[in-house]
Amino acid sequence: MGYTVSEIATALGAKAVGAVDVVINGASEPATAGAGDLALAMDPKYADGLAQGQAQAAVLWDGADWQALGLKAAIFVPRPRYAMSGLTALLDGGPEIEAGLHATAVIHPEAVIGEGAAIGPFVVIGRGAVIGARARVASHVSVAEGARIGDDALLLQGVRIGARVVIGDRFIAQPGGVIGSDGFSFVTPEKSTVEQAREKLGKDVRASAQSWTRIHSLGTVEIGDDVETGANVTIDRGTIRATTIGRGTKLDNQVHIGHNVQVGEDCLLCGQVGIAGSSRIGNRVVMAGQCGVSDNIFVGDDVVAGGATKIFTNAPAGRILLGSPAVKMDTHVEMQKALRRLPRLAKQVADLKAILEQSDKE
Amino acid sequence: MGYTVSEIATALGAKAVGAVDVVINGASEPATAGAGDLALAMDPKYADGLAQGQAQAAVLWDGADWQALGLKAAIFVPRPRYAMSGLTALLDGGPEIEAGLHATAVIHPEAVIGEGAAIGPFVVIGRGAVIGARARVASHVSVAEGARIGDDALLLQGVRIGARVVIGDRFIAQPGGVIGSDGFSFVTPEKSTVEQAREKLGKDVRASAQSWTRIHSLGTVEIGDDVETGANVTIDRGTIRATTIGRGTKLDNQVHIGHNVQVGEDCLLCGQVGIAGSSRIGNRVVMAGQCGVSDNIFVGDDVVAGGATKIFTNAPAGRILLGSPAVKMDTHVEMQKALRRLPRLAKQVADLKAILEQSDKE
Amino acid sequence: MGYTVSEIATALGAKAVGAVDVVINGASEPATAGAGDLALAMDPKYADGLAQGQAQAAVLWDGADWQALGLKAAIFVPRPRYAMSGLTALLDGGPEIEAGLHATAVIHPEAVIGEGAAIGPFVVIGRGAVIGARARVASHVSVAEGARIGDDALLLQGVRIGARVVIGDRFIAQPGGVIGSDGFSFVTPEKSTVEQAREKLGKDVRASAQSWTRIHSLGTVEIGDDVETGANVTIDRGTIRATTIGRGTKLDNQVHIGHNVQVGEDCLLCGQVGIAGSSRIGNRVVMAGQCGVSDNIFVGDDVVAGGATKIFTNAPAGRILLGSPAVKMDTHVEMQKALRRLPRLAKQVADLKAILEQSDKE
Repeated sequence: MGYTVSEIATALGAKAVGAVDVVINGASEPATAGAGDLALAMDPKYADGLAQGQAQAAVLWDGADWQALGLKAAIFVPRPRYAMSGLTALLDGGPEIEAGLHATAVIHPEAVIGEGAAIGPFVVIGRGAVIGARARVASHVSVAEGARIGDDALLLQGVRIGARVVIGDRFIAQPGGVIGSDGFSFVTPEKSTVEQAREKLGKDVRASAQSWTRIHSLGTVEIGDDVETGANVTIDRGTIRATTIGRGTKLDNQVHIGHNVQVGEDCLLCGQVGIAGSSRIGNRVVMAGQCGVSDNIFVGDDVVAGGATKIFTNAPAGRILLGSPAVKMDTHVEMQKALRRLPRLAKQVADLKAILEQSDKE
Repeated sequence: MGYTVSEIATALGAKAVGAVDVVINGASEPATAGAGDLALAMDPKYADGLAQGQAQAAVLWDGADWQALGLKAAIFVPRPRYAMSGLTALLDGGPEIEAGLHATAVIHPEAVIGEGAAIGPFVVIGRGAVIGARARVASHVSVAEGARIGDDALLLQGVRIGARVVIGDRFIAQPGGVIGSDGFSFVTPEKSTVEQAREKLGKDVRASAQSWTRIHSLGTVEIGDDVETGANVTIDRGTIRATTIGRGTKLDNQVHIGHNVQVGEDCLLCGQVGIAGSSRIGNRVVMAGQCGVSDNIFVGDDVVAGGATKIFTNAPAGRILLGSPAVKMDTHVEMQKALRRLPRLAKQVADLKAILEQSDKE
Repeated sequence: MGYTVSEIATALGAKAVGAVDVVINGASEPATAGAGDLALAMDPKYADGLAQGQAQAAVLWDGADWQALGLKAAIFVPRPRYAMSGLTALLDGGPEIEAGLHATAVIHPEAVIGEGAAIGPFVVIGRGAVIGARARVASHVSVAEGARIGDDALLLQGVRIGARVVIGDRFIAQPGGVIGSDGFSFVTPEKSTVEQAREKLGKDVRASAQSWTRIHSLGTVEIGDDVETGANVTIDRGTIRATTIGRGTKLDNQVHIGHNVQVGEDCLLCGQVGIAGSSRIGNRVVMAGQCGVSDNIFVGDDVVAGGATKIFTNAPAGRILLGSPAVKMDTHVEMQKALRRLPRLAKQVADLKAILEQSDKE
């Protein structure tokens, strides 16, 4: 860290004014900023905060009077939220992983570790695994036999990469993620209660006692470039073909991806989303937290699903979904409104009925 | 790997035809099959795929003309999905875990490791723990003091087995699972807001400030034979008695089982299912992804719950459930249908009211 | 273990009667109690169990005739559930972690380990990390650079503490928890489909193809005293400021706390609850399993939310919530009742319509 206001503005492609050689060591909310911090005040509501804090420089909203705000320097950015990405990337020192291979790491002699890679304590890398250049692998990570990971990977503590998993460049995995666990696929010798339920459309069933036999996962997981996975995510390998995650897709903490699932490119799947086996998710799909997708269905490109939306049937491209079962957002709003009025509606119907019965008597 | 078509058919109890000595090294979808792959084409829709791929042998749908499909050999199976279990088991090489005890493993001198067990790098096994014959324990696993695991276990990377947990034979644990964490059980000195809410049936409450004191988990977890647990599952120990998982039950990734819960035999609990404390789940219960079960209730044998079903009250045996709160599947379908028509219904009632008011005036 | 009935009663502030010098080695349900167990029978329904088991002493319900029940000694407690906390604390031996620093632990020379701390095998502690007195750190834990943990911490197997995370005294972390993963925060150069969807209130969108750029997390996580985290929980660090968890709050297994979230004091968040980014949760809030909270909203003090409640909008203090979207508990009950009757209501409206049309004809 340690950049001048001028250097930061240049990195952001933004305009700097005032004493642009002021040195910045970190970023802060305006009210709690120290003298070496760059205050982030992209909205007029932060004006009071600037007065409380010690910042000499700030990123400001369009048209702000930086001198009246008591600042020595200021940066103006056209799209503040986007500027945050450049700014935080600049100021993030990243995790400390010592250069080279830690003495305690257990690396199979037939594994290939790329140039400039840093491998931390208690890491295990299996036979024939290939890890790209400049990889940073934190403590306790395991990469199983035959897995291949591209350049510039960051694998944080305790991440598990399964056998033969293939991952592109610039992969970032938060701690505790499991990529390449076995799919959840079981079968009974005779038709199971589930198969019966599907055939009988919900009539109650009583099956004879049967045990489940596992269908092993011979497939693997294939992940494109620029993918990120959150803490404690789980991604199952495919049965025969690979489970796939497209380029640029980001998975939040505790997301679960079932076997054979295909997730497209540039998707965002937020915390605790679950995608059941063999479903296909298009490109640029965004699902808020706790969404669920049934098995064997298709969710089209650019679908946006609100929090806790449960998708049971195919969704066309561009649709905005809410609710459980998922419906179009405006349908959902209308249904909820009607539902809240339902007790009143029932009362009205009872009244009408009484009037009619009364007039019938008369 | 490397089996003849004849050997595979024998293993499956199936019929092979043609050049049954063709050697198979793997399984594949028809379109992407190489010359050494067995194409899996149990449905006529795969006929085109067979033409695209290089497979010389395939598992085919009943009545397929294998010679016209350009194959040298074929296998016919009566129940294709069930055949997949035998086939994939045959072709799955399993994870590579070196025989014997890895030099880095920390095994307590009073632990007992069964004959033929393979213990990987950085494994920790506590005092008095007993691990059965032929166990395969991958890297970074911990088995705490006094835990007992049966024969032929497969514990994958980073699995945590808590103190005194008892597990049957042929246990399979995907990476990152935690079995035997402390139960989530807290109490306040005076009645808490939750206790008040239950008594007042939902009237708003305002409690005096109180802190929670933990109730420790003195019980453990008992797991039957042939159980499997998914990646990052969590199973809490019981307070006094054990939390139990019955023989043959399979838990998918990120399933959560609370303290004192009793899950029966041959159940399937899919991804992200959660069972709250002290509930009892019968035998052969199947819950799709993201289902939830309240605390202290009972779910009968052979219950099948669709995706994201939330079960708040006891469910009788054989019931098929959907929705939140869970209702019988056909009730749910009817309710959803009515709900979608609800805005129209409200319009009709308004019209009727207007007509009556009009006729009243007249 | 090994306390007399008298000692246990004193520890609980309770009354003991009979042969109060009987020695107790554990606690048990009445029916399965051995001679050295204290039977827990705080309700008359356990009377039969006492007869089946071997217990010589029991904790009994008010007014029970301990002699008639065949006991040699008994303890009577005013609030049985609260007594459980004292009793189980007394009888819990806790996890076995050898005193001192295990030879395999990798502790940075600039880390500070408090007096009396026990650090297990394969633990990694980073540069400048500070761990308080009497900490017990189980195997495979990692504490990253600059993290500070108070006195009397218990970190169980494989817990991950991120860089610069600050935690108070008496912290308990169940296995596999991740505290201080990066926040899930991404932005596109131009407006994304999500931003459009919010502006267009749910009209379908079709965005031009854009990729997501990450906003790095420069903030950290700050946790008060007496906090507990369940197995495989995940808590993200803040973007600029810290994500905070207040004193006395307990998180159950697989809870997910997004970046910038502020959770108050003495809250209970049960299994699989998820709180999206930047939301604020008041004090003494209780959420049952699988609840969800949207991003950027506020949940007031003493709110109680039933299982699987999804909170999309601000919730006032003291409210009891149910359903998805969350509504007041009594509203929810009324809505559900009306919903179940809805098919019947539709039938009634159709009948009324037919009568009116008929009378119209006449």
